[in-house]
Amino acid sequence: MIKASIIGATGYSGAVLAGILSAHKDVEIISLTSKTYAGKKFSDIYKNFKGILDIELEEQNIEKISKNADVIFVALPHGIASAQIDAGVLSNAKVIDLGADFRLKDKEVYENWYNTKHHGEELLDNAVYGLCEWEREKVKSASLVANPGCYATASILAAAPLLKEGVICPDDIIIDAKSGVSGAGRSLDLGVHYCECSDSIKAYKVASHRHTPEIEQVLSCISGKDPLVNFTPHLVPMKRGILASVYMKPVLDISLNDIRAIYKKYYKNEYFIRFLNEGEVPETRWVQGSNFCDINVFKDPRTKRIIAFSAIDNLVKGAAGQAVQNMNIMFGLEEKTSLENIAMFP
Amino acid sequence: MIKASIIGATGYSGAVLAGILSAHKDVEIISLTSKTYAGKKFSDIYKNFKGILDIELEEQNIEKISKNADVIFVALPHGIASAQIDAGVLSNAKVIDLGADFRLKDKEVYENWYNTKHHGEELLDNAVYGLCEWEREKVKSASLVANPGCYATASILAAAPLLKEGVICPDDIIIDAKSGVSGAGRSLDLGVHYCECSDSIKAYKVASHRHTPEIEQVLSCISGKDPLVNFTPHLVPMKRGILASVYMKPVLDISLNDIRAIYKKYYKNEYFIRFLNEGEVPETRWVQGSNFCDINVFKDPRTKRIIAFSAIDNLVKGAAGQAVQNMNIMFGLEEKTSLENIAMFP
Amino acid sequence: MIKASIIGATGYSGAVLAGILSAHKDVEIISLTSKTYAGKKFSDIYKNFKGILDIELEEQNIEKISKNADVIFVALPHGIASAQIDAGVLSNAKVIDLGADFRLKDKEVYENWYNTKHHGEELLDNAVYGLCEWEREKVKSASLVANPGCYATASILAAAPLLKEGVICPDDIIIDAKSGVSGAGRSLDLGVHYCECSDSIKAYKVASHRHTPEIEQVLSCISGKDPLVNFTPHLVPMKRGILASVYMKPVLDISLNDIRAIYKKYYKNEYFIRFLNEGEVPETRWVQGSNFCDINVFKDPRTKRIIAFSAIDNLVKGAAGQAVQNMNIMFGLEEKTSLENIAMFP
Amino acid sequence: MIKASIIGATGYSGAVLAGILSAHKDVEIISLTSKTYAGKKFSDIYKNFKGILDIELEEQNIEKISKNADVIFVALPHGIASAQIDAGVLSNAKVIDLGADFRLKDKEVYENWYNTKHHGEELLDNAVYGLCEWEREKVKSASLVANPGCYATASILAAAPLLKEGVICPDDIIIDAKSGVSGAGRSLDLGVHYCECSDSIKAYKVASHRHTPEIEQVLSCISGKDPLVNFTPHLVPMKRGILASVYMKPVLDISLNDIRAIYKKYYKNEYFIRFLNEGEVPETRWVQGSNFCDINVFKDPRTKRIIAFSAIDNLVKGAAGQAVQNMNIMFGLEEKTSLENIAMFP
Repeated sequence: MIKASIIGATGYSGAVLAGILSAHKDVEIISLTSKTYAGKKFSDIYKNFKGILDIELEEQNIEKISKNADVIFVALPHGIASAQIDAGVLSNAKVIDLGADFRLKDKEVYENWYNTKHHGEELLDNAVYGLCEWEREKVKSASLVANPGCYATASILAAAPLLKEGVICPDDIIIDAKSGVSGAGRSLDLGVHYCECSDSIKAYKVASHRHTPEIEQVLSCISGKDPLVNFTPHLVPMKRGILASVYMKPVLDISLNDIRAIYKKYYKNEYFIRFLNEGEVPETRWVQGSNFCDINVFKDPRTKRIIAFSAIDNLVKGAAGQAVQNMNIMFGLEEKTSLENIAMFP
Repeated sequence: MIKASIIGATGYSGAVLAGILSAHKDVEIISLTSKTYAGKKFSDIYKNFKGILDIELEEQNIEKISKNADVIFVALPHGIASAQIDAGVLSNAKVIDLGADFRLKDKEVYENWYNTKHHGEELLDNAVYGLCEWEREKVKSASLVANPGCYATASILAAAPLLKEGVICPDDIIIDAKSGVSGAGRSLDLGVHYCECSDSIKAYKVASHRHTPEIEQVLSCISGKDPLVNFTPHLVPMKRGILASVYMKPVLDISLNDIRAIYKKYYKNEYFIRFLNEGEVPETRWVQGSNFCDINVFKDPRTKRIIAFSAIDNLVKGAAGQAVQNMNIMFGLEEKTSLENIAMFP
Repeated sequence: MIKASIIGATGYSGAVLAGILSAHKDVEIISLTSKTYAGKKFSDIYKNFKGILDIELEEQNIEKISKNADVIFVALPHGIASAQIDAGVLSNAKVIDLGADFRLKDKEVYENWYNTKHHGEELLDNAVYGLCEWEREKVKSASLVANPGCYATASILAAAPLLKEGVICPDDIIIDAKSGVSGAGRSLDLGVHYCECSDSIKAYKVASHRHTPEIEQVLSCISGKDPLVNFTPHLVPMKRGILASVYMKPVLDISLNDIRAIYKKYYKNEYFIRFLNEGEVPETRWVQGSNFCDINVFKDPRTKRIIAFSAIDNLVKGAAGQAVQNMNIMFGLEEKTSLENIAMFP
Repeated sequence: MIKASIIGATGYSGAVLAGILSAHKDVEIISLTSKTYAGKKFSDIYKNFKGILDIELEEQNIEKISKNADVIFVALPHGIASAQIDAGVLSNAKVIDLGADFRLKDKEVYENWYNTKHHGEELLDNAVYGLCEWEREKVKSASLVANPGCYATASILAAAPLLKEGVICPDDIIIDAKSGVSGAGRSLDLGVHYCECSDSIKAYKVASHRHTPEIEQVLSCISGKDPLVNFTPHLVPMKRGILASVYMKPVLDISLNDIRAIYKKYYKNEYFIRFLNEGEVPETRWVQGSNFCDINVFKDPRTKRIIAFSAIDNLVKGAAGQAVQNMNIMFGLEEKTSLENIAMFP
């Protein structure tokens, strides 16, 4: 059994992760930590776990925890993981960081966008960006995985095939993304009160969301191009889910069939990516609670613009699910283990 | 492997059932039927199943299907099952009926409340009411199980212990129940359009809901008393879940501790019933997607009234989950098999 | 023009009140106060008011404000109003308190249920309970009106006619009430985060909600009886609205027609109370945004229990609307002025 | 008093219109028609109108109704209005058509996009496109107004100023629009059942929505340019509201200040258009229930792209409210009459 710990288990990603791991046949959860709730039972905070995962929440001490763990999942606000994860920790246990600290390769870019110091520059080279479908080989041998951001996952999976094949302009990519409210986390915030965000929609962090450089870096890495992305997130009154609507400009005259063939080339053997039939639109309801990413692509015959849509559950494929997928890859397990849930519908 | 068919697989209960069965290690789904969608792939109707359960939907022919099946789940509107299930079918396969046709023992009561003919009177004696926690022994040897109604499940589980112990007045039980919208099924209906039922609440079928005689019959059967129940269902803007608020009048002066002891007596070994700590309120969010029933009981020190709350997922413990629990019991399997999902939260 | 101030204008009740008053042809808003947002423009906090009510929020100083105001609306958490309103203030301006401090006539009952000191005992006798339909005459000459609680308004309006006529047992009244989330106010609170309360229902403050003694006191005052009420509030995923389901036990054999006649007797001339046609159920969607209270009554032919339902908008008839209705009465205006909005639907 | 009729009063737009007109001091509603509900009282269908508008619904006979009416509002599915409105009707009464039949000037374009015959070609030249802020002068003398589509209203108001000033590429406009569910109307449709569309988001009619040619025609008419628009609508789980996110490519290097100055030039005197402060994002909650359109514009410093957002209530500024605004203009009334409601929040 793989001994696993979750640092920051009482945020939404941490709690979803606890659920997936507690059902994982090869994993034993040895500790859950929480800054806010240390000393309480996990199932007193997330009462759906009553009778399933009643262990007591511990203080956050990654150093100490790493001595008994095979893998540590870190689900902390940005800026904290890079201060606590070091070579010592990594010599004890593999680390999968669900936060942003090890995603950007360039420390300066990180510090500019996140407006904080980075404390673990020396680990940036080691860290593998854990977008499983595109970085599987690197993940296999990684000791530190930077689990992708939720928006980044949806956006990159939708745009990467066409960019890599050189079919679209790298500097004319517009991503209009829509997220459910759980993406904002569980900290107290008037903006996510029921009465403030239900029955309404808005954009936020226009031209300034921190997943923008992440999307550009990874698309660049995948395609060898130099993409420039307009990324605009929106808050939608639903609990979970991200829909990314990606507008791309073809550099040549290409038929929808040929466009579709490109997606199939990259994704036909990917269990968690479902490339839909022509004309079907991805909807978040069909992936909610699952690790699937549903993708489809359209071509506007009048404007020639190509429009791809991808739908994921932000807490699963966009966070905890992909983290476990990464763990499965790192430990040589069947990649789907404990990730076979289908979306809960209705 | 147990060969299973679902008759009426494209209603909400049928689809949830398909999900549970497709993940069940001892079950093989051999056919799904649909009156409306026969000929289409199941995963074209419920796209969450894409890649998981892509079989074609068949016409509804229980007779024919029974010849190859070990167990048939019937999820049809009332009045239809009783016309199609007969001794011949039952000689071929076990049947678990998620509809109402075999729940009421008295044909006349059925015909009065359901305002339709009953076509299978001769089977009423054979049918076992499948409220697992109270009828487990009978279910073990049943060939025909009448799976309980969603409201009835929540209501009976909350009231039965105190009624059986003679602690409350049988004729002074008020059940104010609240259900999510999926309880209304998937037929076209203006009343369940998003714009008509979101952001609002109402009672419906006041003093006339068909689960009323079911609750009374089963409570009577369990307790030996002659209960008279005021049952009032309400429609709540949520997808899944039932909360039953049960107001009971004690016949004697009894402490909350003694009341709690009675619930523990009956439920302490029941995996799917979680009797909460003193003061905790059941909430549908903690059971949504799971087969659990969360129960707690309060005593109003001023009025002496006892108030019990029970929360279930109407489509799981209130339908498909309990149906599989019954199947597990009937086939001598571990009762929890394929029912260990915890609630999806958030 | 009546010069009006709102103390605590940035809570939900205060903001709804600002909307009603800003559209009131006989009222001029001279000041809005806010502890949290003083110095900002009101329309920066509630952006729906942009261009309509852009005045700057002031510090809370009732004493000072009273010198220029004809009427002061106080929308503060309990315990504060009683410390700030005194004879001096009342000699300057009429006061309508939307909080709880002057509702209960017995200081001890208040201190027990609210678990705080009462600072204005000497004013309790002056304060008129502003349930307009039942206390109109007293309100006309009041200088201090205690505006009723939202649950209390819905509950009392539904139960009062039958209790006053001696038709029901005073000590066997069960009120199962359901409220939208705005009832919890606008303070930071994890429990009303979108992801925590959407798609779910729960009871809260079982047998301990502070509107219970208010309901009993006012029903007693209206009927001369000594009612004992079981009051159980529930939180429903909707923004606004209260539905009270009131279960009453008749003391005699009475027909539904005679029951209906009693409601008509009391409410037929009440503009804001709509007693529905036989069989129609009140729904919060039909009153949301309006000052109406929709009521209907049913009789269970089997149990003989009488069930009345009332639906209001908790922020209008349950708070700001009724407050303006009281102001209209106090100043001799047409009672409906600025309260003629119908529910916003869909 | 202006005598007004609504043809098709029981759709959502018709009902909202009935609400605005019934509160209009210069209007008397003389008839409401409904194909589905003729013979019933309007307030039996929309129970929020109980006591306010209880008149009986009539059969749809525009010819006959026009003889007594000063203005007829037509709220019918496309293809019907053009068959029923003719010169005879227009000689009797002014007509404001909330449907699509008279919006497109080119009959062929209409027939291609709407896939139906147009029956009133001879009236197309007479019809004035009633986007009040841009066509006010023409509306003043119009006898037939084509009330703009909801998406078109939001989209055009956001893009027109920059296009007219020649600041952006006409053929590189991407509109990612998000609508609440009421936009789908009130006909039975599984896709708008609560359980199917709550808690989820999807795009629909990708590259094929019928408001696309309308947007292009009107933008062309306003700007003299030849715009080519990528329009993608999305369905969002909220009752009302449209948010249009409009991505535009500048043809020159222009500062945000200069961009903002252009919007102010066109909209500073427009009561119903609220151009927000720098950095503020339009949100549908701030306009829901009102006739306002909130607009703001951003510039991405990295990509140079200009992003404008506009938020309206699809049933008010996007339908019934704008229709009444047009009526007010046509009849020489104060343009705001009966349209001064602010958004209902929360």
